[in-house]
Amino acid sequence: MLKEQGIIPPQDANKILAALHELEKEGICALDLDPSVEDVHMAVENYVTAKIGESAGFMHTGKSRNDQVATDLRLVLKEDIQEILTDILKFIQIILDKAYDHRETVMVGYTHLQHAQPTTFAHHLLSYAQALKRDYERLKDAYKRVDMSPLGSAALTTTSFPIDRERTRELLDFSQLLENSIDAVSSRDFMAETVFALTMLASTLSKICEEMVLWSTYEFGMVEISHEFSSTSSIMPQKKNPDVAEIVRAKTAGVQGELVTILTILKALPQSYNRDLQEVTPHIWNAVDNSHSMLNITQEMLSTVEFKQERGRELAQANFSTATELADLMVREKNLPFRIAHQIVGRTVTKALDSGIKPAEIDSAFLDKISEELFSKHLGLNDELVKNALDPYQVVKTRNVVGGPSPEVVKDAILNLRDFVKEESK
Amino acid sequence: MLKEQGIIPPQDANKILAALHELEKEGICALDLDPSVEDVHMAVENYVTAKIGESAGFMHTGKSRNDQVATDLRLVLKEDIQEILTDILKFIQIILDKAYDHRETVMVGYTHLQHAQPTTFAHHLLSYAQALKRDYERLKDAYKRVDMSPLGSAALTTTSFPIDRERTRELLDFSQLLENSIDAVSSRDFMAETVFALTMLASTLSKICEEMVLWSTYEFGMVEISHEFSSTSSIMPQKKNPDVAEIVRAKTAGVQGELVTILTILKALPQSYNRDLQEVTPHIWNAVDNSHSMLNITQEMLSTVEFKQERGRELAQANFSTATELADLMVREKNLPFRIAHQIVGRTVTKALDSGIKPAEIDSAFLDKISEELFSKHLGLNDELVKNALDPYQVVKTRNVVGGPSPEVVKDAILNLRDFVKEESK
Amino acid sequence: MLKEQGIIPPQDANKILAALHELEKEGICALDLDPSVEDVHMAVENYVTAKIGESAGFMHTGKSRNDQVATDLRLVLKEDIQEILTDILKFIQIILDKAYDHRETVMVGYTHLQHAQPTTFAHHLLSYAQALKRDYERLKDAYKRVDMSPLGSAALTTTSFPIDRERTRELLDFSQLLENSIDAVSSRDFMAETVFALTMLASTLSKICEEMVLWSTYEFGMVEISHEFSSTSSIMPQKKNPDVAEIVRAKTAGVQGELVTILTILKALPQSYNRDLQEVTPHIWNAVDNSHSMLNITQEMLSTVEFKQERGRELAQANFSTATELADLMVREKNLPFRIAHQIVGRTVTKALDSGIKPAEIDSAFLDKISEELFSKHLGLNDELVKNALDPYQVVKTRNVVGGPSPEVVKDAILNLRDFVKEESK
Amino acid sequence: MLKEQGIIPPQDANKILAALHELEKEGICALDLDPSVEDVHMAVENYVTAKIGESAGFMHTGKSRNDQVATDLRLVLKEDIQEILTDILKFIQIILDKAYDHRETVMVGYTHLQHAQPTTFAHHLLSYAQALKRDYERLKDAYKRVDMSPLGSAALTTTSFPIDRERTRELLDFSQLLENSIDAVSSRDFMAETVFALTMLASTLSKICEEMVLWSTYEFGMVEISHEFSSTSSIMPQKKNPDVAEIVRAKTAGVQGELVTILTILKALPQSYNRDLQEVTPHIWNAVDNSHSMLNITQEMLSTVEFKQERGRELAQANFSTATELADLMVREKNLPFRIAHQIVGRTVTKALDSGIKPAEIDSAFLDKISEELFSKHLGLNDELVKNALDPYQVVKTRNVVGGPSPEVVKDAILNLRDFVKEESK
Repeated sequence: MLKEQGIIPPQDANKILAALHELEKEGICALDLDPSVEDVHMAVENYVTAKIGESAGFMHTGKSRNDQVATDLRLVLKEDIQEILTDILKFIQIILDKAYDHRETVMVGYTHLQHAQPTTFAHHLLSYAQALKRDYERLKDAYKRVDMSPLGSAALTTTSFPIDRERTRELLDFSQLLENSIDAVSSRDFMAETVFALTMLASTLSKICEEMVLWSTYEFGMVEISHEFSSTSSIMPQKKNPDVAEIVRAKTAGVQGELVTILTILKALPQSYNRDLQEVTPHIWNAVDNSHSMLNITQEMLSTVEFKQERGRELAQANFSTATELADLMVREKNLPFRIAHQIVGRTVTKALDSGIKPAEIDSAFLDKISEELFSKHLGLNDELVKNALDPYQVVKTRNVVGGPSPEVVKDAILNLRDFVKEESK
Repeated sequence: MLKEQGIIPPQDANKILAALHELEKEGICALDLDPSVEDVHMAVENYVTAKIGESAGFMHTGKSRNDQVATDLRLVLKEDIQEILTDILKFIQIILDKAYDHRETVMVGYTHLQHAQPTTFAHHLLSYAQALKRDYERLKDAYKRVDMSPLGSAALTTTSFPIDRERTRELLDFSQLLENSIDAVSSRDFMAETVFALTMLASTLSKICEEMVLWSTYEFGMVEISHEFSSTSSIMPQKKNPDVAEIVRAKTAGVQGELVTILTILKALPQSYNRDLQEVTPHIWNAVDNSHSMLNITQEMLSTVEFKQERGRELAQANFSTATELADLMVREKNLPFRIAHQIVGRTVTKALDSGIKPAEIDSAFLDKISEELFSKHLGLNDELVKNALDPYQVVKTRNVVGGPSPEVVKDAILNLRDFVKEESK
Repeated sequence: MLKEQGIIPPQDANKILAALHELEKEGICALDLDPSVEDVHMAVENYVTAKIGESAGFMHTGKSRNDQVATDLRLVLKEDIQEILTDILKFIQIILDKAYDHRETVMVGYTHLQHAQPTTFAHHLLSYAQALKRDYERLKDAYKRVDMSPLGSAALTTTSFPIDRERTRELLDFSQLLENSIDAVSSRDFMAETVFALTMLASTLSKICEEMVLWSTYEFGMVEISHEFSSTSSIMPQKKNPDVAEIVRAKTAGVQGELVTILTILKALPQSYNRDLQEVTPHIWNAVDNSHSMLNITQEMLSTVEFKQERGRELAQANFSTATELADLMVREKNLPFRIAHQIVGRTVTKALDSGIKPAEIDSAFLDKISEELFSKHLGLNDELVKNALDPYQVVKTRNVVGGPSPEVVKDAILNLRDFVKEESK
Repeated sequence: MLKEQGIIPPQDANKILAALHELEKEGICALDLDPSVEDVHMAVENYVTAKIGESAGFMHTGKSRNDQVATDLRLVLKEDIQEILTDILKFIQIILDKAYDHRETVMVGYTHLQHAQPTTFAHHLLSYAQALKRDYERLKDAYKRVDMSPLGSAALTTTSFPIDRERTRELLDFSQLLENSIDAVSSRDFMAETVFALTMLASTLSKICEEMVLWSTYEFGMVEISHEFSSTSSIMPQKKNPDVAEIVRAKTAGVQGELVTILTILKALPQSYNRDLQEVTPHIWNAVDNSHSMLNITQEMLSTVEFKQERGRELAQANFSTATELADLMVREKNLPFRIAHQIVGRTVTKALDSGIKPAEIDSAFLDKISEELFSKHLGLNDELVKNALDPYQVVKTRNVVGGPSPEVVKDAILNLRDFVKEESK
């Protein structure tokens, strides 16, 4: 660009470019990275000076360390984000495949960590996939604000050389200019936003890992984590410590800590470049590296987790997680107002638990007795319908609303997400 | 929708709707908001029951507190965000107007809080406008993930009633469905993201306020804050404490604290609804209310700030902030490599300071003497050019690159931003 | 003091004191707390002026809002801390009483949320008591730095009146002077430290609450939370949501958020008083109020929790949590190196699980077979000892080391902590 | 201890001790620190095994990685804290020496970054010293809770071997036992508290550095930072960027970020050891290393800072920072109520500024004119007293109250702090 605009004499420009191409071939080791040299830009200039002499000094024309550093950071971060985006899509794809296999795998859904309603492992897995999809979109939105060129802002007020900022933007493959030059050299909101997007990703991963820790306990017994992602004790081989899940859970706090650091550095800092900004840099690389490896190891752990289908069904049947469906049945079949149905079912559950009656043993007559006691109403529900309302698998099949757990709508949800992944992978 | 799908008998549905319309007319005070009533949804149901009797119980069909609360939060937050977005645009507009008036108001630009290069107050103001523009876009991106309907997810697995989630989405004016029902009732990433976007806005405001605090000191003396936004002491009327700026600066920390709280609540929380989520809510309203009032008061303070033009020029001339331009002149006029020019100017500044020579007193002969000493080079620069290179206003005029401080490109930048504001205000 | 030092004429001083005594009797409502009045100190002065005329103006002599506000904050905070300290002691006492009753209540101890070794509920409860004891001591240490008098520092450089700061310190019952007057009006580290100490207390409470959430799940089934501290659904009366525990867990994040806010306000704030400091105040009261009510409600919840003894024993026996003891037995009885014993037991557990053999069924012969296979060693352990080593209760009884779970040492630990509580309650 | 208690056969114990002594001589490089070896304790055991064979297995008797790791962390942290404590004392000492030299160096004291009242550089420096003293005491209090021995807790329930925890506590030079064994292996509050104490230290350092950044601006011009602690540009040698101060200011945010990470890891983590705790460790070393080097470099920077006495006096005189003293004079000499005096001085300042009259030019007659206008009172103050009241140095001399700026009380304050340093250095 400097050559194109006639700012540097063509022959000097050509010499410089030749030297830089040579450097590209030789690699970074050709540079003298002695700490006494100010920074890498200076080291490159020294290299070129050694090759072509004094006219290397032209290289720096119309630039400053301030805009060069800001440009470098954005270039590297763009690549990092693209890699993480690709790996989120990969994780979603793996979840979709696993969900496809578990469309009929019944389990209990929890609220307050108490049994709430029956669902399937596939439906649960899709809740992870949707959260990851938003994490993906959020990071992609952050990317738009990384993908802006500060180059040409020089120290803070551009330069009197007739440089062409649009041309360098294009050459460096940035989508937009970061226009105002004071803002361009000093804004680091793109770093805070990227780390925030990674914190949210980490938050999703920590939820998945927390569930793996819980579900792999002796008490829950719902999953078995593969031995590569857990540790055992030679004396207690039955104990599989979910180390990887615990570490990811803890590292989530680390990414959040980096975010706090960056925000606190930026708070109430006057314009424009202050050395404080240099201190932001290691925190973003920490956050990027940690969240990236957390993403990949969680993906690997989850993809090798074995869901224990029998235990899933056992828990879904054990503790009246189907109570809501029973009430819905009364509303639907007998036009009972919801609140009335609610009370009949509540009394039913209490009575069953008190008398040691299992969900599967409740029939229409049992319900009528209670309904008559409470409201002097005879319900006369079909016994087959009552039985189905209390069978977790049958209940799951009736949840046909978009986003629900029935195998059919789960399949639709998987197909939609597959399309999303395919579209974004282009 | 419940009526349309035939889930509630039409006559009951009509009665319910009539009662709800009546409630709308009477206003919220018609409700019994006794704390013993579970929540507002229950209070509404009680109201309708009082009007139309038992069939009010149908209202609740296919819903649950979990999806209703998530829906309510999103509806309110959408409105709040829209108001803040409008006020950011207003602030940008006011900055643009002020910048337009100050295109020729010279001041010194700082790096490390040390004099760096001359610029204008307009150019500096535009650095605020660009930061606010990104804050606007970031909040608008967050809005996309608020604007999703969880309704129909019921407690966590939807319902067996044939409800139409798309229809309620449309009726409530949401852009998308939050599809997976487990995710829909328990995801609060939209809150964290909104608070993050507000934290970044607050960060921009804290930068503006920090500068107003500094610039209004006796030492800087560059601005005078209007008396409405400062406090005086009856004994020291000359002392104008920049209270508003200080408070906004401090409240930035408060918004950040809310973000940390929300992220820490969400970390490692298993699916799906847990009571913890209820605790997120007050923090988001705090963050919304505080950042909104911070925005408006900063806007009002800045719009009434008086920039002291004489002091601006004085500081720009006092301390060789034009040194870079002098070096650029040598590169441009005499084809000196940048590093060589740099050294000549450095020696010039040192010598001038040592001998008490002011920038305006330096001429071509002075430069030649130094150039000859250092490199045995006679430069023979035109005296007029040297004088201009050392005059802050002349220097500013040469900074014609996109995003630079010259009055013309500043005017272009203002026009571009005005278009942006106009486009977004539609 | 102003009277004692002869700074105010005695008759004026007496009039002022009389008016202040009257105000004390009338209560705060006698003040005109119109927001246009600068602050409460000014309102008091206005009140006194109304009573005794112009000489009320003497009241303010040698004081300033800066040192008065700092003094007020410390006085109120001292009281708050004392109340919280008292309530921590009360909580420890309640835990000790509960632990005393559960000295023989066997349960399994967890590491990585996996079964590790048998212990007792009492031993586990004492881990809470010890953490609370440190929280108590930490808050008491923070109190030392709250209990310092800034009064007499005036705006920031004291006054030329010959005031006696020691005398006001004594009258206001502060232990030390906050000597340097610039530091005295502007330091808020005492607030950050108090909130930190409360954050650590909240952290301990969050651990207790997390365990109550886990242990009250259907899967763990180890405790039942009293109905006052949980919520049920009318339709699912078997479901007891541990709402209080969840809310305390979430509010921990809130206290931490207040800490972050305070630290971020203080970061890089120049001397001395800045309006930012005023913004610290609401955050400390939030943290104090929230952590205090979290403390008391957690105490009430824990004191009414019912531990299910049968389930405790069942889990302790189910999954070879006694494996370590079996290895220790081999070391003790047969002088086997620890690593060798470790390997024999590991193989034993694997074999038992593979063949469906329960811990109680393993005998000396079974161990010998494995020992011979692995190391060609015949162990010949006494069958009674083997049985005891595999019985959780017997194992617990052998853990006689200070701080261990055996009923005797637990009793000692309880007595020691009771002495501590008694000593501190004086 | 294991030998003393007869837990390990004496000859085996002796062999082990001999091997360990040999290892101590050879140093850490004698160990095989291959990552496949579980941890350093295992590497030591392997070393001993290689030396003395199978009976090395006894070493591990009654211990576990859980209590060993907790013990190691505490031992290392104790040393680190002691070093930092020593360096804080050193910093205080250096401040005291500098303050001693600047007892008569007048400067203006700021509130809201506006001129408030005259003081001295010594007085200002002592505000740093007092803050550092509290940072010292806080860290020393934290140390008490680091200095506790968890050893003997084994995995979490101690051991059935008759180990003597008091003896190992004594041998390892811990002051107290961390009694309860579950608490002992899992509590990390000592880490959070240490990092908090370091965050407060960093907060103090950030205040000092913020002031150095401000005071070294062209506008303030009150200090010159030594070239070792600032950077210049070859082209603008007059520009001294306060890099070190900026970096310390930014690193304060980093220490705070580590604190947030640790607190977030600990939040709601159930008992006892979880792998998450391992993730706390790198954050504490980061915080320790960073705050330690921040402490030392700030000390070095401050000790070489040159205070510009002339500029200090100039600013103190320029802007009526003596107004309060003038009012105090009226109260003292003429028994005027404070509010009346306040109003007279306020009007005086306004009038002087409007008419371009400098503080030094105001005399008794000027004051009387205003007093008569406002209150029809003739004051008749002694002209000498008026002159002194308006002379910053004379005003400073009247501030004789404990903790004030007068050279005498500053000297007392220095002597008191010297005694403190001497006492603590023992």
